[in-house]
Amino acid sequence: MLPANLPMYQQRVEQHLQQLLTARQQTSPRLLEAMSYSLLLGGKRIRPFLVYSCGTMLGASLHDLDGPAAALEALHSYSLIHDDLPAMDNDDLRRGKPTCHKAFDEATAVLAGDALQTLAFEVLSSHDYQHCTPKAILHMVQCFAKASGYSGMCGGQAIDLAQTNQSTNLVQLEQMHRLKTGALIECAVQLAWLCSPNQQSTELDTLLRFARALGLAFQVQDDILDIESDTATLGKPQGSDSKANKSTYPALLGLENAKAKAQQLYQEALNALASLPYNTDELRAFAQYIIERKF
Amino acid sequence: MLPANLPMYQQRVEQHLQQLLTARQQTSPRLLEAMSYSLLLGGKRIRPFLVYSCGTMLGASLHDLDGPAAALEALHSYSLIHDDLPAMDNDDLRRGKPTCHKAFDEATAVLAGDALQTLAFEVLSSHDYQHCTPKAILHMVQCFAKASGYSGMCGGQAIDLAQTNQSTNLVQLEQMHRLKTGALIECAVQLAWLCSPNQQSTELDTLLRFARALGLAFQVQDDILDIESDTATLGKPQGSDSKANKSTYPALLGLENAKAKAQQLYQEALNALASLPYNTDELRAFAQYIIERKF
Repeated sequence: MLPANLPMYQQRVEQHLQQLLTARQQTSPRLLEAMSYSLLLGGKRIRPFLVYSCGTMLGASLHDLDGPAAALEALHSYSLIHDDLPAMDNDDLRRGKPTCHKAFDEATAVLAGDALQTLAFEVLSSHDYQHCTPKAILHMVQCFAKASGYSGMCGGQAIDLAQTNQSTNLVQLEQMHRLKTGALIECAVQLAWLCSPNQQSTELDTLLRFARALGLAFQVQDDILDIESDTATLGKPQGSDSKANKSTYPALLGLENAKAKAQQLYQEALNALASLPYNTDELRAFAQYIIERKF
Repeated sequence: MLPANLPMYQQRVEQHLQQLLTARQQTSPRLLEAMSYSLLLGGKRIRPFLVYSCGTMLGASLHDLDGPAAALEALHSYSLIHDDLPAMDNDDLRRGKPTCHKAFDEATAVLAGDALQTLAFEVLSSHDYQHCTPKAILHMVQCFAKASGYSGMCGGQAIDLAQTNQSTNLVQLEQMHRLKTGALIECAVQLAWLCSPNQQSTELDTLLRFARALGLAFQVQDDILDIESDTATLGKPQGSDSKANKSTYPALLGLENAKAKAQQLYQEALNALASLPYNTDELRAFAQYIIERKF
């Protein structure tokens, strides 16, 4: 079941991203079109959800949270465009539609990804915050850069490339996921915390524990769906992991143990939430959604 | 003739970049190597020079200027890696050495570019500034993002791609250069100004006028060298513009008029400097170097 506010948050971040793009001058219409295409193609909007849900729980305003929510989604979108390129995963389908380099061309896809990464930093730093100090906003930019570069997402993608066609153990697989997707999921809760009026460092630690478990649970479930789901539901080719000779949790643990691993991470996420002095119903529902989703 | 401090500033920014990279964990050694290769391959370091030279003229400390100088060079380096890709300009040589995708592979080159863009934002936001307020640093990040994304460098590269094999007029050519390289050259003086203790907005306007003329003079001279120089001196294939069917100033104006245009822009740059209440000898010498350089 979808968490009650997920569609509202999805719509909110999409409207904000749309506004950001339509405010641009039409100096490079094809590039702008490719950026819009990839950014507004749909998607679960997991990172924006985490920003909005954690942030409002901690007392931040939805308006202020639009900045980090949009930044995280723009960054995620750039990473998908570049990961899909022929030189990388060479994927033709994303969310049931042609990938950016298929819908446009390779040069435009490289540039659209580049410009979306820049857009992410632009919106994060230049958003019209009402309640955040320059110091807090600067801290957000610092966290965001760290999570998305060599020591985070980019480094994780490099490890993923290096692991393809190689035998991998569980420790290496987990390190790859922690960098490739985990770093930005942790960043989402950290940005929400930095947007909020009361910044208790013990609560940040707990939220990061929640995000770490949730991020890994998401990946394990992704690997399971790559085996159990079908192409129409996934919006991308079923079985693409094994076809690309990628290491997965089911391949290393077996399918049943992978499912047990996902459940264990789900419990870790819930345990973290249980120690917070807030109403965490929405985040609990979100963790359940992550673990039960079919695509 | 080289401006007296150019080698010292080159060495300074290179040391700083080197330190940034060697401080990273070796989680993705091949990616890190590709980043170092491209970042430390040499180059004129024009943007760092402008940061250091303008910044010290305005009273900023060299230590504080290391942040924006390194950020601009990392961003420039990412743009060269991606521009050289087979899907873009498909260049094999850069500064006399194999381009990143030739020395490594295409996937690594895409990722190295991506990670260098992120590194640029990381060093700009996380540098250990001694005299800048969070507000000024945040303002630097905002300017930097604007200059490097869709409304700046990336947009300029998209126009460049669109203009290839198309007939172009002088207005279109100039708009492309203003975005593709001009935006970051203007950004260099603006970051220097933001780093400095006395921020007079009239002086910023004058510095931006200087940077705009200088940036365009650099491009006109680049086009002239592509005709008059040779591959060994340039470190990249001579005649590559006409081979790639790119619009150039000599192609639109004729070689002699292009040279006159470069001189006119040089004079505009000197005129702007003449109205500043500082010793501008170093910046004057730099403008002369830009216009007289042979590579």
